[in-house]
Amino acid sequence: MRPVYIAGVALTPIGEHWELSLRDLACEAALKALEKAEVERIDALYVANMGAAPLQSQLHLGALMADALGLYGLPAMRVEAAQASGGVAVHEANLAVASGLYDSVLVVGVEKMSDALPLEVRSALAMAEDQEYTAYTGVTDVGLCALLHRLYMERYEAKPEEVAALAAISHEHAVGCPHAQYPFRVSVEKILSSPMEADPIHMLECSGIGDGAAALVLTADRGDVEIAASTVAVDHFFLTERSDPLILEAVRTASKRAYERAGISPRDIDLVELHDSTTIIGILSLEDLGFVEKGFGARYVSEGNVRRDGELPVNTFGGLKARGNPVGATGVYQVAEIALQLLGEAGRCQVEDAEVGVAENLGGVASTASITILRRH
Amino acid sequence: MRPVYIAGVALTPIGEHWELSLRDLACEAALKALEKAEVERIDALYVANMGAAPLQSQLHLGALMADALGLYGLPAMRVEAAQASGGVAVHEANLAVASGLYDSVLVVGVEKMSDALPLEVRSALAMAEDQEYTAYTGVTDVGLCALLHRLYMERYEAKPEEVAALAAISHEHAVGCPHAQYPFRVSVEKILSSPMEADPIHMLECSGIGDGAAALVLTADRGDVEIAASTVAVDHFFLTERSDPLILEAVRTASKRAYERAGISPRDIDLVELHDSTTIIGILSLEDLGFVEKGFGARYVSEGNVRRDGELPVNTFGGLKARGNPVGATGVYQVAEIALQLLGEAGRCQVEDAEVGVAENLGGVASTASITILRRH
Repeated sequence: MRPVYIAGVALTPIGEHWELSLRDLACEAALKALEKAEVERIDALYVANMGAAPLQSQLHLGALMADALGLYGLPAMRVEAAQASGGVAVHEANLAVASGLYDSVLVVGVEKMSDALPLEVRSALAMAEDQEYTAYTGVTDVGLCALLHRLYMERYEAKPEEVAALAAISHEHAVGCPHAQYPFRVSVEKILSSPMEADPIHMLECSGIGDGAAALVLTADRGDVEIAASTVAVDHFFLTERSDPLILEAVRTASKRAYERAGISPRDIDLVELHDSTTIIGILSLEDLGFVEKGFGARYVSEGNVRRDGELPVNTFGGLKARGNPVGATGVYQVAEIALQLLGEAGRCQVEDAEVGVAENLGGVASTASITILRRH
Repeated sequence: MRPVYIAGVALTPIGEHWELSLRDLACEAALKALEKAEVERIDALYVANMGAAPLQSQLHLGALMADALGLYGLPAMRVEAAQASGGVAVHEANLAVASGLYDSVLVVGVEKMSDALPLEVRSALAMAEDQEYTAYTGVTDVGLCALLHRLYMERYEAKPEEVAALAAISHEHAVGCPHAQYPFRVSVEKILSSPMEADPIHMLECSGIGDGAAALVLTADRGDVEIAASTVAVDHFFLTERSDPLILEAVRTASKRAYERAGISPRDIDLVELHDSTTIIGILSLEDLGFVEKGFGARYVSEGNVRRDGELPVNTFGGLKARGNPVGATGVYQVAEIALQLLGEAGRCQVEDAEVGVAENLGGVASTASITILRRH
């Protein structure tokens, strides 16, 4: 297995793009990334997407996007693992180059959610959970997270404002980020006085819905940013079957494997992109990635350690909460953002002297976890 | 890249399985394949599926099936390329083992179509075509094939009975096949007197719909059947943009690449599983795989050369037409069938002394082609 580098990165602003189709968004990101990468040829295309079948009645995005980009004859496919589709597509693309089979590969994550009715979006997102045992009850992803949030506060005596701090800091980080959906400050007070989405989770503790596309060109040619590790792991699908629902075992397994492959420990990580679809999932992730002891994540966050100038910069462009969460594309956004930081191209969101960063992308309530570690050379 | 072998194979009968869920079907095939494979451990799971989002409202099949099989901690994902999902999943699984990253990988193709209303199934299948330019007109996949069928008959003076012969021979081959959906003979006369599906394509020239699952265990441990090549290629998405719509360029590209990788020519192939979703697509495939000159495929078939005891045995268990076409699973069925033939485990469908076989799996009207070549050791 040979080293794999990131040759080009592009992100579209996340928002309500009424004037752009799924294809338009994907092409915008892909063409920019290709332009930056300056590779001679693309050998394969991986498309990450979750909801195009229920939301746009569109499957077969591999061949469709290859055609739109004028890339004929190459292998093209869609990779899907619900909201972790982006991270998992990066895993497959990385493998394709690392193996020596392909030299340069394009990954495009794309999602378009704002065309659909809110209930259609809810239904599409619920397809990440089991329709026969979980989703049919009507419980939403946020509803499941609410169970964890309540248990966490009770068991570890965490305060609502400590958990909500993650959303406030993420919003702080999004200020000045050109691709962020919500690039403005939101105070903890405002978050905790927003309507309940699923008690005890407030609306402003959840990521919103949006349209967006992100693209990466991976190549075997030596570059400035290397993929030091890319792993995927799955856990029990049902919260009720996990030995401790407050442990995201898939995150533990995938990150442990990733640290081993990269030959590092969590202490070597300079910045983190978390899958904070809700604040509690972000907090639990921080713990299970090995940065904070179980039960201390919320306090760690509320003390400001995860600020861009803190001990461990987290969600440096705003995370799912403020940068946005176009589900199937999110994992590609995260990896692209880490790359921008390591390249010193993060603009107003720049972190000082970062050398190693990790992106964590989850599907369902962490039934799938994808971990990508990037390293500057 | 190291050699990859097929360690275990299992197929469920294709039909209307009202009593089995998507999960039940996948597990039935997977557990049988695992039992046969006798590998110590499974390192990754690839699920091939096309329509579970529109038909069962279910995404995230990687983690879902891993959970159902008790496989925790491994990477699991769904690969989708419309009706070519099966072949493309085999491509990814093969790469995962060939690269050295994983030693033993499970591929499960699964589709459940008969629960849904016929119109829902039509809509799901139409998602393989472009919703903005093609599918919205209401044209079906068979409707698009009808254009090719008519042009083929006109340009090459092929007779309806010559094209229909492929369906008749496929049905002949399915007799005695335990997993075939339609294991009985159907005469050319009966085919040509069946109702028109899309003029000039008769209903009995099209594959039906059905439920089924197929599973393969791929491993680096030396076995009796090797994956000599696995390739994927895409073509112009729209028939109107192809320089000649009667040339399936994706099939040409992918098969040429596969022959090169395997170090063989079409003359070395002993048996073929074609993607005969309609008779005309089967005929064109036979030509573009390099077995017959363009325009002579229908005659070649009608002369009986593709019979199990003929020059080039084709669809030895009945093909999509008679074995069945549970779309996302079909490519996995094909590869499993070639493996069974090479292992001498094809029962009443056995071909004599076959050493090399090729499976061709298509998405849309051949906008994606996947080619898998297996070789006996």
